[in-house]
Amino acid sequence: MDTHALLRQLVQKNDSKIELYVADGLGGLPQQPGGKTELETAATPHLDKLAAEGVLGGSIPVAPGISPGSGPGHLGLVGYDPVEFLIGRGALEATGIGFELKDGDVAIRANFCTLDADGKIADRRAGRIPTEESTPIVERLAKEIAIDGVEVIVRPVKEHRFVVVFRGQGPAPEKLGGSVADTDPQATGVPPLAAKALDAASEKTAKICDEFIAQVRKLLADEPKANCCTLRGITGKPSIPSFEEVYGLKAAAIAVYPMYKGLASLVGMDIVGDAQTLDEQMDVLKSVWDQYDFFFIHFKYTDSTGEDGAFDAKVQRTEEYDSAVPRSMDLGPDVLIATGDHSTPSMLASHSWHPVPTLLWAKNCRCDAATEFGEQQCVTGGLGQFEAKHLMTLALANAGRLAKFGA
Amino acid sequence: MDTHALLRQLVQKNDSKIELYVADGLGGLPQQPGGKTELETAATPHLDKLAAEGVLGGSIPVAPGISPGSGPGHLGLVGYDPVEFLIGRGALEATGIGFELKDGDVAIRANFCTLDADGKIADRRAGRIPTEESTPIVERLAKEIAIDGVEVIVRPVKEHRFVVVFRGQGPAPEKLGGSVADTDPQATGVPPLAAKALDAASEKTAKICDEFIAQVRKLLADEPKANCCTLRGITGKPSIPSFEEVYGLKAAAIAVYPMYKGLASLVGMDIVGDAQTLDEQMDVLKSVWDQYDFFFIHFKYTDSTGEDGAFDAKVQRTEEYDSAVPRSMDLGPDVLIATGDHSTPSMLASHSWHPVPTLLWAKNCRCDAATEFGEQQCVTGGLGQFEAKHLMTLALANAGRLAKFGA
Repeated sequence: MDTHALLRQLVQKNDSKIELYVADGLGGLPQQPGGKTELETAATPHLDKLAAEGVLGGSIPVAPGISPGSGPGHLGLVGYDPVEFLIGRGALEATGIGFELKDGDVAIRANFCTLDADGKIADRRAGRIPTEESTPIVERLAKEIAIDGVEVIVRPVKEHRFVVVFRGQGPAPEKLGGSVADTDPQATGVPPLAAKALDAASEKTAKICDEFIAQVRKLLADEPKANCCTLRGITGKPSIPSFEEVYGLKAAAIAVYPMYKGLASLVGMDIVGDAQTLDEQMDVLKSVWDQYDFFFIHFKYTDSTGEDGAFDAKVQRTEEYDSAVPRSMDLGPDVLIATGDHSTPSMLASHSWHPVPTLLWAKNCRCDAATEFGEQQCVTGGLGQFEAKHLMTLALANAGRLAKFGA
Repeated sequence: MDTHALLRQLVQKNDSKIELYVADGLGGLPQQPGGKTELETAATPHLDKLAAEGVLGGSIPVAPGISPGSGPGHLGLVGYDPVEFLIGRGALEATGIGFELKDGDVAIRANFCTLDADGKIADRRAGRIPTEESTPIVERLAKEIAIDGVEVIVRPVKEHRFVVVFRGQGPAPEKLGGSVADTDPQATGVPPLAAKALDAASEKTAKICDEFIAQVRKLLADEPKANCCTLRGITGKPSIPSFEEVYGLKAAAIAVYPMYKGLASLVGMDIVGDAQTLDEQMDVLKSVWDQYDFFFIHFKYTDSTGEDGAFDAKVQRTEEYDSAVPRSMDLGPDVLIATGDHSTPSMLASHSWHPVPTLLWAKNCRCDAATEFGEQQCVTGGLGQFEAKHLMTLALANAGRLAKFGA
């Protein structure tokens, strides 16, 4: 079913406020069978109170058994089918460093490589050149490279990786085609591939790619490691309908990390504030409360501690996440959802496929028997297990923002 | 997945009897957090006994968060995807007064309006003319209007609203196209719109619409309020495969209200009896028991009391619904399902999105731990939460009417 098509018919506006309070990687696993997960171990009095008043469930980010990356995880969470709406690797990389793509841009993940005297690739990652060495080289490219009729934006990422964006110039910039094959041959001892357009609209982009590489090679001829680069994941800005268009919501994103600001901006949220801590995020929330309908608040550290395999640290970060709940509730939201974009069990030290504990609090949410927010209670919660992409519909319904379907 | 395509392959016939016992708007909400819903408050000893022997679950009429109208609610309940099978406004209005549409008919919801001396709309609803004034005018139109080659059927509804049906004449009547735009300009101070066909097959229908309005205007020229009409929701009979064709079931509908008789007739059920009370419905059920495989029994008052916001009255109506269960069970059904087409919590005084309490009783249904029929016990019931459209498959399976899929 095309949920967005249905919602476009049904959405109605009112003055309600919806908060989506995301603890990245929230779901976990116990350290031994029969034990408690990170969330169940953590003292979370404020979330437990909301769990008792609200309704729990398990959110399935993509499909049972599928572990999502941050892109699909967040897209699903805000109601976009993560299999339908794909973000190309180049666009995701640009988004990940907080770069705001425009329609018609082409974004590329570039890798420095080392060519031998015959122009063949000797090292596909330029000896994993350290960031402190690669950054000045990227800055030099940013300054020196010039291609007729196109703006070239080059930004460092980490080690051998950097981002390239081509953008049409002028008051009505040309939209560049975003379908060009990788120039990385995925092998050493062979020369880099010429850029090959995969459709007619991308012929010009392929030529720009070749010109870019030629200039890089010339500029970096004397570099011992990073004397050339390959281009991968060459893609346009993904075509994603905006939050306002689909849900009729004016949405604000309050995140610390660039990747999540980038993902939020792709669905048309305003990136507000420049908070560096959860407490500062709550300050920003309060300061913009009157200007928006929907607030996406992203807390990163439940994921990063999970990725580190640090059970106790994840417990502690979960308690920190809980501690900010009263500041949210003081603002008087109509709907508050606490959940994650996926599970990151510290026992796996990676994203996982396990359903994500989800708490929905609203006046008419049909409270269930749950008394605490945790994986076990979510299993028997009133929301059941559901695909993450339905969560926005539930949020809108509970906020009174959906008309009846059919007479 | 196309469930109907699957079922068409698997359906096998036997002598089993399936009863779908619908309490309209059954699901509810407690009056305060932690309290009991209408169904949980009601004394329902007969349903509780079936709950203990059967299996419970929560039915999602359309999708999580979507509140359905009666059309999509009932279509979903009897296994038709409510987003795929849409019933146009005109067809629903005709159905709602119990009018049986035929293939090739065009059904229209008409509104009396008031034109000023310049032929511009002064009042889009003819001053909400009372039913006792509008009905004789409709009867006059029914008697006087004649259009070459087409049968014109005109029926009163309420106040300014009436139904018009155009039907091809003769032994092999022409099927009329049903895609014509509304003639209501949705504004006053402007003349009504001419009928505009939205596809080539509806050109003739548009001409008939214009001729109809011209005759109405002439006939009613001296009426002070209702001196013209607009035509809205101009639609053909929806193309819905019949119950017998998809499920191999000969089905009887035992309903009191015209709307539900109409909806049942759209899926090819026979409308049987003329019961006015639940007790009379049970008399009809008994009298036709040997002639059908499937019985749809519709009880309206759990919805109407919910719509009225009358918690106690809904509790009482739920007890009435329960009280008729023994008369059903005495007939010895193989499968009995008690559920609603949607929730109508009296706390909201409207249809809602909350999952509908559902009870399936059958010999081999895999009984769960439930002891009472109510929203909370449905959350942890053996059917889980499921899309309503799957309920018919479960009914057929429990009746032994489905062959194994694949070898």
